[in-house]
Amino acid sequence: MRIAVDAMGSDRAPTVEVEGAVGALLERPELTVVLVGDRAAVEAELARHPQAPLGRIEIAHAPDVIDPGEAPATAVRRKPNSSIAVGTRLVKNRHADAFLSAGNTGAVMAAAVLMLRPIPGVDRPAVGSPVPSATGTFFLIDMGANVDTRPQHLLQFAHLGTIYAQDLMGVDDPRVGLLNIGTEPGKGNEQTVETFELLSRSPALNFVGNVEGREVIRGACDVLVCDGFVGNVLLKFYESIAGFMAEELKREMEAQGVRLDLKRLYSRLDYSTTGGAPLLGVNGVVVIAHGGSPPQAIRNGIGVAARSLERRMVEHIATRLGQVAATSESR
Amino acid sequence: MRIAVDAMGSDRAPTVEVEGAVGALLERPELTVVLVGDRAAVEAELARHPQAPLGRIEIAHAPDVIDPGEAPATAVRRKPNSSIAVGTRLVKNRHADAFLSAGNTGAVMAAAVLMLRPIPGVDRPAVGSPVPSATGTFFLIDMGANVDTRPQHLLQFAHLGTIYAQDLMGVDDPRVGLLNIGTEPGKGNEQTVETFELLSRSPALNFVGNVEGREVIRGACDVLVCDGFVGNVLLKFYESIAGFMAEELKREMEAQGVRLDLKRLYSRLDYSTTGGAPLLGVNGVVVIAHGGSPPQAIRNGIGVAARSLERRMVEHIATRLGQVAATSESR
Repeated sequence: MRIAVDAMGSDRAPTVEVEGAVGALLERPELTVVLVGDRAAVEAELARHPQAPLGRIEIAHAPDVIDPGEAPATAVRRKPNSSIAVGTRLVKNRHADAFLSAGNTGAVMAAAVLMLRPIPGVDRPAVGSPVPSATGTFFLIDMGANVDTRPQHLLQFAHLGTIYAQDLMGVDDPRVGLLNIGTEPGKGNEQTVETFELLSRSPALNFVGNVEGREVIRGACDVLVCDGFVGNVLLKFYESIAGFMAEELKREMEAQGVRLDLKRLYSRLDYSTTGGAPLLGVNGVVVIAHGGSPPQAIRNGIGVAARSLERRMVEHIATRLGQVAATSESR
Repeated sequence: MRIAVDAMGSDRAPTVEVEGAVGALLERPELTVVLVGDRAAVEAELARHPQAPLGRIEIAHAPDVIDPGEAPATAVRRKPNSSIAVGTRLVKNRHADAFLSAGNTGAVMAAAVLMLRPIPGVDRPAVGSPVPSATGTFFLIDMGANVDTRPQHLLQFAHLGTIYAQDLMGVDDPRVGLLNIGTEPGKGNEQTVETFELLSRSPALNFVGNVEGREVIRGACDVLVCDGFVGNVLLKFYESIAGFMAEELKREMEAQGVRLDLKRLYSRLDYSTTGGAPLLGVNGVVVIAHGGSPPQAIRNGIGVAARSLERRMVEHIATRLGQVAATSESR
């Protein structure tokens, strides 16, 4: 199993990527990693890891970097030697089985759509994220890659998320919820009212209905379907809560002279450290990590890529979305 | 100053409403309250408050109740003797200066729009809420009354929110932010991209740009403008955080044998107890309280109504939105 890792993507590249990759290699003896980035920088970083299994590490030279602010599709076309373009091309040409990047999310997505192409039946590939809840973890899809989505897209997200939850979270019959502003059918905006209808009429989905903002944290479903705009706002807000609570609790502890160790709680809440938001619906395994990822998140992201390959997630998506498309067309 | 209070709206009506109203009356000697609801039930409840200043309490009999699940506009029309219809009519006929209700939000809004009418220049009256942040309080508008909004509506929300922040929060030149999924201009969905343009071109607004989900809690602005769909999801999610954290922290405290008193923190986070989401943009002062309000929230909501009257907020809205409408039309 060969996984290409963008070594230049994160805020602290290539330090974090190389450390994360070495950690993943030591964990998984079947793994080979292709570090994609500036060869000299990557080699210098690798030299700091004497325990690195060099026989299972390759470097694909990619001198260019796509910056966070660049227009994704343009950047991918203009910079064919960027780490994102090179890494995606490795998957396209079957020199790698999967690609992980902590770089510009839009550019990773644009490269995947341009080079790997969407799976038939998928109008818009989507990015989802596992999110901690009071009772475990749910999978939120889409987390910001797609805005102005149509109900048909959200229906496809529900199927993509169901496959992810089955293959990567080990949930047999994932409960699918629709993020909405009321629980009853008929509540919501035009988009969610129509999506509710589509989800209700899909026998292949275990649709449990609308999920309000206040039910999200309680783990009301395994797959939470939403437009990328609201998904992004919700996730980023969630992400900020751990830091906010940390400050507030620190103040309370100081005022009361009490010491409570909250490391375990914060690490559970800080979903960004878990790493590995899969891009679902393209012909290939692509995993997106947070720009501020620590090495642990890169290692976890490589783990998500590896398990996606082991479970044959892309094949499952192709089969299911092909069936869904065939069913809608035959109506 | 006479404020009509829906005595039948909350989950624990009329207990909570009567207790809250008595508290407000004792706090404000200039105040008269008209309790709107089933006369017998209200009188029975009042009898439990020997300290109630009966000379400043009236009862407007309203035998009907609009249930949470009823279709708002239909319910208001079909139940002219509901507490919501009667209370709003009191304001319309100038028998009361303001109306507060913890009932069906949609019905309160429908009654206000039907009977009090929108202020010229306001296409869609909106409901906002003060929300606690790390640095103080910001005002989120809209919190769920309006979905499928157009950019022009969001521009109006920005002006409505600015007036609220000036009159009720005492902020001279409120910073207006647009809830979005990126900070740069041009980020977002069709709605926010176009709204960004409108807000940027409005010299009367102190527009500070896009605000991402992760900046919300940090108090990046005084007025946060958004479509009611995302506003509702965000607020309800926020609302659930205090309870979630309480459970998680309890578990940590038990595991570590440490006791930290978190009452102060929770009450700060639990914005629903602060009470009083104003409906802005109608010809009259209407304040909406949470269905699960405690008496304190009703008392605070009455306070919001009283201060809105004292500061002449409705006049300020009429002047400003009239000017905005005149400017747009002359272009």
